[in-house]
Amino acid sequence: MIFASDNWAGAHPTIAENLVRHAAGFASAYGTSELDRAVERTFCDVFEREVAVFFVSTGTAANALSMTAVARPGGVFFAHRDTHMAVSECGAVEHLSGGGRLAPIDGALGRFTPQALQAEIDRYPAAFVHSGQPAAVSITQATEVGTVYGADDIAAIARTAERNGLPRHMDGARFANALVSLDLTPAEMTWKRGVDVVSFGGTKNGCWCAEAIVFMNPDAARDFPFIRKRAAQLFSKSRFVAAQFEAYFRDDLWLETARHANAMAARLAAHAEASPHARLAWRPQANEVFPLVRRDVVEKLEEAGAIFKRWHTPPAELAGQTQENEVLLRLVTSFATTPEAVDSFGALLA
Amino acid sequence: MIFASDNWAGAHPTIAENLVRHAAGFASAYGTSELDRAVERTFCDVFEREVAVFFVSTGTAANALSMTAVARPGGVFFAHRDTHMAVSECGAVEHLSGGGRLAPIDGALGRFTPQALQAEIDRYPAAFVHSGQPAAVSITQATEVGTVYGADDIAAIARTAERNGLPRHMDGARFANALVSLDLTPAEMTWKRGVDVVSFGGTKNGCWCAEAIVFMNPDAARDFPFIRKRAAQLFSKSRFVAAQFEAYFRDDLWLETARHANAMAARLAAHAEASPHARLAWRPQANEVFPLVRRDVVEKLEEAGAIFKRWHTPPAELAGQTQENEVLLRLVTSFATTPEAVDSFGALLA
Amino acid sequence: MIFASDNWAGAHPTIAENLVRHAAGFASAYGTSELDRAVERTFCDVFEREVAVFFVSTGTAANALSMTAVARPGGVFFAHRDTHMAVSECGAVEHLSGGGRLAPIDGALGRFTPQALQAEIDRYPAAFVHSGQPAAVSITQATEVGTVYGADDIAAIARTAERNGLPRHMDGARFANALVSLDLTPAEMTWKRGVDVVSFGGTKNGCWCAEAIVFMNPDAARDFPFIRKRAAQLFSKSRFVAAQFEAYFRDDLWLETARHANAMAARLAAHAEASPHARLAWRPQANEVFPLVRRDVVEKLEEAGAIFKRWHTPPAELAGQTQENEVLLRLVTSFATTPEAVDSFGALLA
Amino acid sequence: MIFASDNWAGAHPTIAENLVRHAAGFASAYGTSELDRAVERTFCDVFEREVAVFFVSTGTAANALSMTAVARPGGVFFAHRDTHMAVSECGAVEHLSGGGRLAPIDGALGRFTPQALQAEIDRYPAAFVHSGQPAAVSITQATEVGTVYGADDIAAIARTAERNGLPRHMDGARFANALVSLDLTPAEMTWKRGVDVVSFGGTKNGCWCAEAIVFMNPDAARDFPFIRKRAAQLFSKSRFVAAQFEAYFRDDLWLETARHANAMAARLAAHAEASPHARLAWRPQANEVFPLVRRDVVEKLEEAGAIFKRWHTPPAELAGQTQENEVLLRLVTSFATTPEAVDSFGALLA
Repeated sequence: MIFASDNWAGAHPTIAENLVRHAAGFASAYGTSELDRAVERTFCDVFEREVAVFFVSTGTAANALSMTAVARPGGVFFAHRDTHMAVSECGAVEHLSGGGRLAPIDGALGRFTPQALQAEIDRYPAAFVHSGQPAAVSITQATEVGTVYGADDIAAIARTAERNGLPRHMDGARFANALVSLDLTPAEMTWKRGVDVVSFGGTKNGCWCAEAIVFMNPDAARDFPFIRKRAAQLFSKSRFVAAQFEAYFRDDLWLETARHANAMAARLAAHAEASPHARLAWRPQANEVFPLVRRDVVEKLEEAGAIFKRWHTPPAELAGQTQENEVLLRLVTSFATTPEAVDSFGALLA
Repeated sequence: MIFASDNWAGAHPTIAENLVRHAAGFASAYGTSELDRAVERTFCDVFEREVAVFFVSTGTAANALSMTAVARPGGVFFAHRDTHMAVSECGAVEHLSGGGRLAPIDGALGRFTPQALQAEIDRYPAAFVHSGQPAAVSITQATEVGTVYGADDIAAIARTAERNGLPRHMDGARFANALVSLDLTPAEMTWKRGVDVVSFGGTKNGCWCAEAIVFMNPDAARDFPFIRKRAAQLFSKSRFVAAQFEAYFRDDLWLETARHANAMAARLAAHAEASPHARLAWRPQANEVFPLVRRDVVEKLEEAGAIFKRWHTPPAELAGQTQENEVLLRLVTSFATTPEAVDSFGALLA
Repeated sequence: MIFASDNWAGAHPTIAENLVRHAAGFASAYGTSELDRAVERTFCDVFEREVAVFFVSTGTAANALSMTAVARPGGVFFAHRDTHMAVSECGAVEHLSGGGRLAPIDGALGRFTPQALQAEIDRYPAAFVHSGQPAAVSITQATEVGTVYGADDIAAIARTAERNGLPRHMDGARFANALVSLDLTPAEMTWKRGVDVVSFGGTKNGCWCAEAIVFMNPDAARDFPFIRKRAAQLFSKSRFVAAQFEAYFRDDLWLETARHANAMAARLAAHAEASPHARLAWRPQANEVFPLVRRDVVEKLEEAGAIFKRWHTPPAELAGQTQENEVLLRLVTSFATTPEAVDSFGALLA
Repeated sequence: MIFASDNWAGAHPTIAENLVRHAAGFASAYGTSELDRAVERTFCDVFEREVAVFFVSTGTAANALSMTAVARPGGVFFAHRDTHMAVSECGAVEHLSGGGRLAPIDGALGRFTPQALQAEIDRYPAAFVHSGQPAAVSITQATEVGTVYGADDIAAIARTAERNGLPRHMDGARFANALVSLDLTPAEMTWKRGVDVVSFGGTKNGCWCAEAIVFMNPDAARDFPFIRKRAAQLFSKSRFVAAQFEAYFRDDLWLETARHANAMAARLAAHAEASPHARLAWRPQANEVFPLVRRDVVEKLEEAGAIFKRWHTPPAELAGQTQENEVLLRLVTSFATTPEAVDSFGALLA
């Protein structure tokens, strides 16, 4: 009954085995091996266009260096107030981008609207040196609270950004979970809706350590090899990441693991809805479930060994909607979550 | 016949298997798992004292963040002119430390002397704000040219640094190779000789991706968790690095792989000495061999598929010592180098 | 009728003359001259203790380098949401401190409470690496909206900060205006209430370019000479700043100019209160007045050549309090504001 | 007999008076006043083309922000080993440019050749991510040792830089001294010879604090307002710098003060040559004289109150050229140096 986070899981056996398969033999280092090149081609296939792909070691690196790639002096990055970059990355984007800033945008359920984006951009009048200048827009897909932006939402935000001359970034630490939730192709969820750069996460969805930055326009990545290297993010044995991605994409394993995780989340949600002691704070759309659970039941769950987070920072939209004896929980599922664990949890909840 | 670099090798089978062994199951993330804790204890055992250990993704990260940990405003890091930080890390230390600078020290065979260090330090008078202030001393062990500092050399440099109030860092990307070359314990090669912080590399010696920063004094690392996190170097599934190190240290595998690599280098050196077409530029002390080889023989080697580097930046001390038809080569061996490959190379050299 | 900003004024004649008086002759550079030393002593007298004083070129520099001096890795600076650092300095503090972040605190009339501060600090649990770590607290005195913190307010905030182990900074771009408003001594408004570092501004109060960072505890400034120099803020002919401060403090000129500016603001406020077409949005406590004025009257004022700002970002507390045909204005007075200008403005307002 | 540095002088009376003249009245802040605009036009006239001009507070800021404006990720700036940026600015360029590095080029008498430049550039092969990438070339005019680059020297270096795709910067802290020494126009010494950006110094030549960055191509400065502001270098009362430059350029005062300083240097040099106890280390071409003086005479000079520097870091080219009882001195002259002081010094030297 471990629902603490999707990064508590290990590695999918297929991915682990592929890594071992590539353990033997020699290959050129620093991302120049045949395997690296082959996986780069796979990324192009996956996204149905020429893309530039760069492996990095963490999702935080993917986000911070994506923003660095589009940074401007005095630059401001527009993102949701509760996005990972803003609350969970210890200032990495500010540090690595040389002092870029995040402008927090409010919005219900982890998402913001084009209108809210435009209102925030308007606080930075062009060439008004005192406030700084807009540099980029970032959305998180799936969001930190387990919701997703619809295809039209993405397109609308991207159009607003584009009208303001701003590149569009997607934090896709849970890219696959959002993708299968929406039943879109990677192309449809990104560049066909105006997204320029993606933090493409594999770690939470069955890899050990496989994060990539994908530039939809390779020309925009000309300086990026230097940005990555000076940030100490160029693996020497880069092919150990490539090997993970090779297995990840083969036979659509990544979609299968994401579908499984989402299904487990839905199953958890069903248990919560069925329980007289719990209710959903909002409907899950990916692999995170946020139920409000009666305090004594929460304690019982913990005593029984279930692991999850008491969510200490409920979104503003819950204000006044919760009762005193309710606790907001975050439950995260992954490729490794079993129906048995979910149902055991459900039984305790009932 | 691949002698391009020790990072062209894959992973040692024992290490790969251990990684797979830990693929299943759940564990807490971000370096807090039992396996992480156990490996931290192993590091304490290896170094025979309480140390603070932090995994990072690359040797460049280990170096740059080690220096960041000891940086001062306007700070200057003293290191050999040809050290990895200075010539092969794209300015990572300057970038990540917020503008720290490297003061290059000359010295034969990749090493500098305490006298040369003091002379360079003297260029930064205390409280003379214009030149900046000394911040730390770094030595590379083994060096970039396959030599090592003896225990007394390390102690003498450390004493000089200490007299000037400066912390001592060791870039140990090839720590194990130096260690077995000198037949010292880790304690003897580091803190017993005055070293404070070590970039402890496992990747070149049989791991896929296993680099650690080891602080001999844990109190000096109080802020380091934040330094690492804001640099985007905190792995979520940190235990996949821990698993590598677990196997690395078990039954002294790491010493065995290093001894093998060094032995292969010695065997290569013997071939070079025996050849009428080659001679050693200097005696190898770890796992890198630098022979001067007749140009036509070099071409023959390349045609035969041998992979190595023509060393484009011969150290100053070779000036006037080489003949026109000689090429300086760099040959690197590793756990994966076979005697057969070495002897095939030797045969072509003869 | 120029009420655009206190930095639209030139220099007070006494200050200008003193600068000329020191134009001739030679003096040692980079802050080491006799005049520099004498003015440093004056600062000690003014603050009634040994302080360390550093001149810098702008108020932005004073703020950004003050925070840099107390920065920590992953560090967070707590300040009011609308403070100058946050909205008018183009990210200087983030840039110069190496990626430090501002945590915005809400609060009416440009001030925040100890409770609001504690609530924000609580979002950064100790040693929780993901969110970063608290580094310092900054208050602005007088605030951006012309109010001041009372002596007890300052002490209460400082106590809260101290309980959390955080140094206390005061952005004193309008230090003198607040001081005379409260009728306190510099010591009473700063270190006797727990303030550690002050951005001490002279420019807005009659100097051309005279900003200083004052450390109440000189030991805390040991590295600061290097912080200033590497930020390119060490004047070679430093004494031209010293000369301004010499005249500024002599015969309490600085208090006189501040009192004049505040009196002019009060006179403006009286006109606004007396007018049937205007009302005060809140009571001015220093040299800034924020009236709500009927739109047609605003246009008349502008046509008559009056210069002021339409304040585009009214504080949240005004929401729902204004009428559609009202415009919020910001009027700033200075040593150079004449009663005639104020009364002409008042006549138009009436 | 003060020859310590040209920044020991105060301000030229004409410049001081002009500052006072502009003390009264109001003007818009942050570089937008009529006077600011007028002085910008004067710069265009002086350089005979449309230029973009930005005032900053120090020569260090001018250099560091010039390089920041042309920086690239992993970028390397090529400059003489002994240039001010490298040895006297506390790492400001590395800090403010986000980790850019200086690649030191050797060369006699403070100058380097196009050949030496190309050899250094060749150490950074295109797209070789490990070493970083070339970003810009900087020359110092006049140099740190009182010599100047001839017009053809500048053009040759600029051509080499241009062939390598690198922008050209001139550190003109002593721009005027070089200009009158060569009898060139500003255009001839800069853009007509391929220079793109100039650190234009007024402080050492009679101003108090007047430094500017001049972009020969205003399009290249599009982001520069933000670069300056986030570096805390935008003066609010910017016109006080403008006022200095207004007087500086009027009636060619700047050329007059530079000619005077150079003439005083020549006069000092003549004394040194005439003395049996001294000789010139090399011929002065601007306002700095480097004589080798017999040790006992140096002591006599110091006892008599003369102020100068014993030059502790003699250029490499002097090695073996000096005798044991000789001391290398640096004597700097300025607009404020009198013939009487020079002749008194000369008399003691004789």
